[in-house]
Amino acid sequence: MNSHKKRERERERASERASETTPRQHMPITASEGSAGFAAAKPDLDDLIKRRFFYRQAFEIYGGVGGFYTYGPPGAAVKQNLLALWRKHFVIEENLMEVDDTNIMPHDVLLTSGHVERFNDFIVKDSSDGNKFYRADKLLEEVMDARMAEKGLSSEKLVEYEKVKAQADAYSKEQISAVFKQYGIKAPETGADLTEPEEFNLMFATPIGPTGMVQGYLRPETAQGIFLNFKFCLEQNAGVVPFGIAQVGKAFRNEIAPRSGLIRQREFTQAEIEFFVHPEKKAHPKFGDISGLELLLFASDQQLAAQPATRMTLGAAVAAGTVANETLAFFIGRTYLFLVRAGCRPENIRFRQHLPDEMAHYACDCWDAEIEMSLGWVECVGIADRSAFDLTVHSQATGTSLTAQQTLDTPIKIERFCLTKKSLAAIGKHFKKDAKLVTASLSEMSADALKALKATAEAKGVCSLEVEGQSFEISNELLQVESITETQHVEVFTPNVIEPSFGIDRILTAIYEHTFSLRADDSAASEKPADGGDKKKKADKKEGDKVKAGVLALPAEIAPYKCVVLPLDQRVVAQYGNLLAMARAGLAENGLQYKVDESGASIGRRYARADELGIPYAITIDFDSLDGGSLVGTATLRERDSTQQVRLPLADIPAIIAKLSSSHQLTWEDVLASYSTGGTSSSSAGVAAAGDKLDYLRKHAVAATLNDAVNALAETQPEDPIAWLSAHLASMKSQ
Amino acid sequence: MNSHKKRERERERASERASETTPRQHMPITASEGSAGFAAAKPDLDDLIKRRFFYRQAFEIYGGVGGFYTYGPPGAAVKQNLLALWRKHFVIEENLMEVDDTNIMPHDVLLTSGHVERFNDFIVKDSSDGNKFYRADKLLEEVMDARMAEKGLSSEKLVEYEKVKAQADAYSKEQISAVFKQYGIKAPETGADLTEPEEFNLMFATPIGPTGMVQGYLRPETAQGIFLNFKFCLEQNAGVVPFGIAQVGKAFRNEIAPRSGLIRQREFTQAEIEFFVHPEKKAHPKFGDISGLELLLFASDQQLAAQPATRMTLGAAVAAGTVANETLAFFIGRTYLFLVRAGCRPENIRFRQHLPDEMAHYACDCWDAEIEMSLGWVECVGIADRSAFDLTVHSQATGTSLTAQQTLDTPIKIERFCLTKKSLAAIGKHFKKDAKLVTASLSEMSADALKALKATAEAKGVCSLEVEGQSFEISNELLQVESITETQHVEVFTPNVIEPSFGIDRILTAIYEHTFSLRADDSAASEKPADGGDKKKKADKKEGDKVKAGVLALPAEIAPYKCVVLPLDQRVVAQYGNLLAMARAGLAENGLQYKVDESGASIGRRYARADELGIPYAITIDFDSLDGGSLVGTATLRERDSTQQVRLPLADIPAIIAKLSSSHQLTWEDVLASYSTGGTSSSSAGVAAAGDKLDYLRKHAVAATLNDAVNALAETQPEDPIAWLSAHLASMKSQ
Repeated sequence: MNSHKKRERERERASERASETTPRQHMPITASEGSAGFAAAKPDLDDLIKRRFFYRQAFEIYGGVGGFYTYGPPGAAVKQNLLALWRKHFVIEENLMEVDDTNIMPHDVLLTSGHVERFNDFIVKDSSDGNKFYRADKLLEEVMDARMAEKGLSSEKLVEYEKVKAQADAYSKEQISAVFKQYGIKAPETGADLTEPEEFNLMFATPIGPTGMVQGYLRPETAQGIFLNFKFCLEQNAGVVPFGIAQVGKAFRNEIAPRSGLIRQREFTQAEIEFFVHPEKKAHPKFGDISGLELLLFASDQQLAAQPATRMTLGAAVAAGTVANETLAFFIGRTYLFLVRAGCRPENIRFRQHLPDEMAHYACDCWDAEIEMSLGWVECVGIADRSAFDLTVHSQATGTSLTAQQTLDTPIKIERFCLTKKSLAAIGKHFKKDAKLVTASLSEMSADALKALKATAEAKGVCSLEVEGQSFEISNELLQVESITETQHVEVFTPNVIEPSFGIDRILTAIYEHTFSLRADDSAASEKPADGGDKKKKADKKEGDKVKAGVLALPAEIAPYKCVVLPLDQRVVAQYGNLLAMARAGLAENGLQYKVDESGASIGRRYARADELGIPYAITIDFDSLDGGSLVGTATLRERDSTQQVRLPLADIPAIIAKLSSSHQLTWEDVLASYSTGGTSSSSAGVAAAGDKLDYLRKHAVAATLNDAVNALAETQPEDPIAWLSAHLASMKSQ
Repeated sequence: MNSHKKRERERERASERASETTPRQHMPITASEGSAGFAAAKPDLDDLIKRRFFYRQAFEIYGGVGGFYTYGPPGAAVKQNLLALWRKHFVIEENLMEVDDTNIMPHDVLLTSGHVERFNDFIVKDSSDGNKFYRADKLLEEVMDARMAEKGLSSEKLVEYEKVKAQADAYSKEQISAVFKQYGIKAPETGADLTEPEEFNLMFATPIGPTGMVQGYLRPETAQGIFLNFKFCLEQNAGVVPFGIAQVGKAFRNEIAPRSGLIRQREFTQAEIEFFVHPEKKAHPKFGDISGLELLLFASDQQLAAQPATRMTLGAAVAAGTVANETLAFFIGRTYLFLVRAGCRPENIRFRQHLPDEMAHYACDCWDAEIEMSLGWVECVGIADRSAFDLTVHSQATGTSLTAQQTLDTPIKIERFCLTKKSLAAIGKHFKKDAKLVTASLSEMSADALKALKATAEAKGVCSLEVEGQSFEISNELLQVESITETQHVEVFTPNVIEPSFGIDRILTAIYEHTFSLRADDSAASEKPADGGDKKKKADKKEGDKVKAGVLALPAEIAPYKCVVLPLDQRVVAQYGNLLAMARAGLAENGLQYKVDESGASIGRRYARADELGIPYAITIDFDSLDGGSLVGTATLRERDSTQQVRLPLADIPAIIAKLSSSHQLTWEDVLASYSTGGTSSSSAGVAAAGDKLDYLRKHAVAATLNDAVNALAETQPEDPIAWLSAHLASMKSQ
């Protein structure tokens, strides 16, 4: 378990950004108690996930292909809702721009980004059968595991094998080849020799156009589509930096060995932000909003010193220099808030800083949001200060200026050392047809080079200039230099970029693991509605025996369906048509996803089915709804996590669920308080009384009368409004 | 123009469903007046689209690649909002399931669907230069166009060329090769011979896994991912048919000659529904909701008789048999309502029925929603009854049962003709080791075949049975047959499917063309705020001269930003920070996308900029908002299409915009009525009075007092509530 998790964790980093080419050596990851708890619940969760079709292997009726998954109805809805929440939390609340670029990208773009040359894993093949292949680092790890398990191993050897294993994904091609020879590693299935390690590019290649005139690839990340459009987005932002661009979409990696469900797929969903800032202005105006957040931070020096992660506020972390700057810390804080809002458990989230040799050479600082789940701590979000790297390389490759400008508060003076205009003109005249070549070369020369040239000319009376293989002699008289002071009012700079990059499918995995539980002794299945009785006593035994009562306590905002509508008994189906139609219309009008369960199962069993889908609210239409005197037109509303119920007018329910399922302040406790008199547990009497009150007010059209009165009041604006209202109401004919 | 459009239209159908293999011969499409109007406005619209970065060619800084587009911030937001509206209109309101399948699909799936073998265009190459290639049908059309333009052409020849051109995309490989030879068509650039036409498959191929062990393709349509998961979705629906599954996502076609902007891209977005029904039960329970809709229908017999399309209700169309069934008609109606809700002009939408030889052989009926735009009538949605074709072929290819069951109201009796059990046993015994082979073959035999076999046996005393190349002699004594009557309680059937398939990018093109206009004499740019004065008179002349005042009257539901926040004058920036922060928080809380325009441009110019982005509402924070006595804390709200303004408390605005931008009933007229006294045009006095009234009520906490009183009222439930309230208020201490 331990070593399995460790390898998993190490692997997490191998296919990160292609351009991270510095060797990586990872700290061993220790499985925690939390991880073991999630692992124990995993078989039941996996059963639920597949049985209710949250997701399953893609193309299953064709036998499936590794690394591809299909999200079924509840899973696709949760993913949609998670992305909507992400857009609300980041794009809207941080007022970012969003672009929607293509999945297929041409060779040149990905050559610049480094993916064509460096987005590789090493592969070795069985020399007796080329169809048997292995990812070199994974095979090496397995061989080392096997050797460490051998009996009578010296502690020296144990350390050696452990070290090789830890390095496996950091070796260069030559190194890994040497290691394979040193340990005499053979093809595991046949015992034949292995071929030399070859680089295997992880991008899916596909030619564009009928003659494959342009080599295309499926994008390995969504970030490049942002950099390509930086210039056009900056224009839309009226040239003002800072600003951020987001992109959400599919990314593709042709993994040699896909595994771990949604964690390492060949096709997955990313949500990335590139937040562009001035290189020297990385403070963030809203830093104060998150500076008090205390998070579990695992700084690189703690990792190197084998110390545990510690809780620390982001304010303190920036002050201490642990986190490089405010903007980076701001997005760490916002990421944490997002993950918790989406349903991840706060205590299972930590932020791990990349080690110095783990970061790309150009990166200033990088933190991963790691979420503890059954596999151990899994990187789910990377938040990096990537400096000006991406814009710089694309600018160089295309000759397009990818800079921003800002007016300087105080203009600055710059000293420049150059040839005098007169001297340039004279040199031009002197060299005739070569004039352009010589003067261009002199103009581009650095101050130091020019000074050196002038020094030579002064010493020898002449100097020689090499341009494109030709040599030109310039006399000291011709070479007249000067220092010029220029005043600069505008600063041109290549923005730095802070990049929060979200692995949506990994976060979904964490959400399912963190919200899943089994109800104690199958309580939901034996639950009864608040009143109206459970007339469906025949026990659905077969289903009840086979299925454990799993619950997904998904936050209402991301739950696949916001409610389920349940007729209490099939026998009333004919009568309840109108009420159902009313509920459907109300739910659709409020944009709420919902389900209707008209099966013959007991009400408790149907609650349990809804719990499995993470449905937060259940509306039960019972006999009283149809024929219960003052209760006609009411229904019971049940909340998933507390299993509390309350009776209220069916017409009120859709708007209430809409509020409960959004960021609106209304809480379930408010609903209980409004509609029941008896505190948290709703008694029949209390419920009846609440329905009764509403009936009374409705019957007498109290609201309409009061609205008219208040309008008249506002028109008149008397000194004492309440006295005035009292008199006004007295003068009205009571209805 | 005319012939260009005609070719465009004909081309629309060429790359439809791969399995539509019957030859197609298309009716000529006549450009209408509407189309010419859109074409005239197109250059201004295109300028706006690119300048404000709704979309532009992808990878532009790398020179671009044909057929790929990037949606910039406003365009990506409009697309997101359109998809959200689609989900609300179909997935939620029709209670469909949604799946999220992969973009990469394996060979076997697309072999079954017909795409591997038949999703082709013909390509011809210049024999002197293999890099010069042409789509055969397009080249043929161009050659015919050129010949028709020759002088002195006989009318006979003209008809011949016209006919060849009209057939161009319907020829088989042999036919088109013969036609090229007949007319001696050469490579247009070099005059060299052309190669024989080759089939070019339009799918993007990409190998999966390191040895390309599985041939993969990018999906050419989203529909296949639905059929693959029919079985698992049916399980989630408790086995009940009818039900529908939707999928939204990218689709990919490696077009030889991409063109017409978003209309024919290599990567595009589809939204498809497969609605599964019993083959003989295609009525729809909600048909009554749309049966009264009168639409422009262009039935196939009208097209063949060269008659115009006619207006007809869907109820009448189904009654007359023009539309094949209620479910098909229901989705035609819902599609129409969606397109109008999204911003398409009703008068520019028609539904064209496929001609009998244009439909796939298995399809019962098929209608395209065609939208009139600058190119002519463009197919944007296809709505087809595809019978049981897709489920049948996938079931056959995989050996997976893709059927549904339903309990029969009245069990039916079925006569079966078969061998007696005794006879089967005896035959088994007789043939020993071949027993299984022989009895299996006899059991699977049809009644007719078995009857024929028995007849032979009776006539000759013996009959012979061929199984897998072996011959078995069976005596008449052994072959004992009987008729059995079986009672069937459950019917097993392969559902038929009604498929509405939406081309999202085409619909977006239509929406932009239909909502775009130029303001008469640049009125927005000279607009002033309701009061507070326009202190920014310096005329931004440069911008004003270059840019015409375009407006996108996008429905608020799909507008990229729901409002723009404008400080009236940059000089107040320091003071208005708090108000802006309040507006931002309120807008974000309501999940509203918004922009802030703090540029120094005049207020009119900034309104004009917002109009270009289709922003429906502008909030102007002016001097009175900050320092206007009773107006402090208010702002003006301007509506884009009417350019009317009203002043109201800033705190109220976000919730109002949220309602105006959703399917909530609140209208702009309601807002005007609530907050201004002077009818539609808001006078300063009226605005002040409205703010004043609210101030008065707030100051005296009238709402809180009344809430308490109403709660007490509901508790007491007196006979005369108004009299009681009057007394109760009188007894309260006035505040």
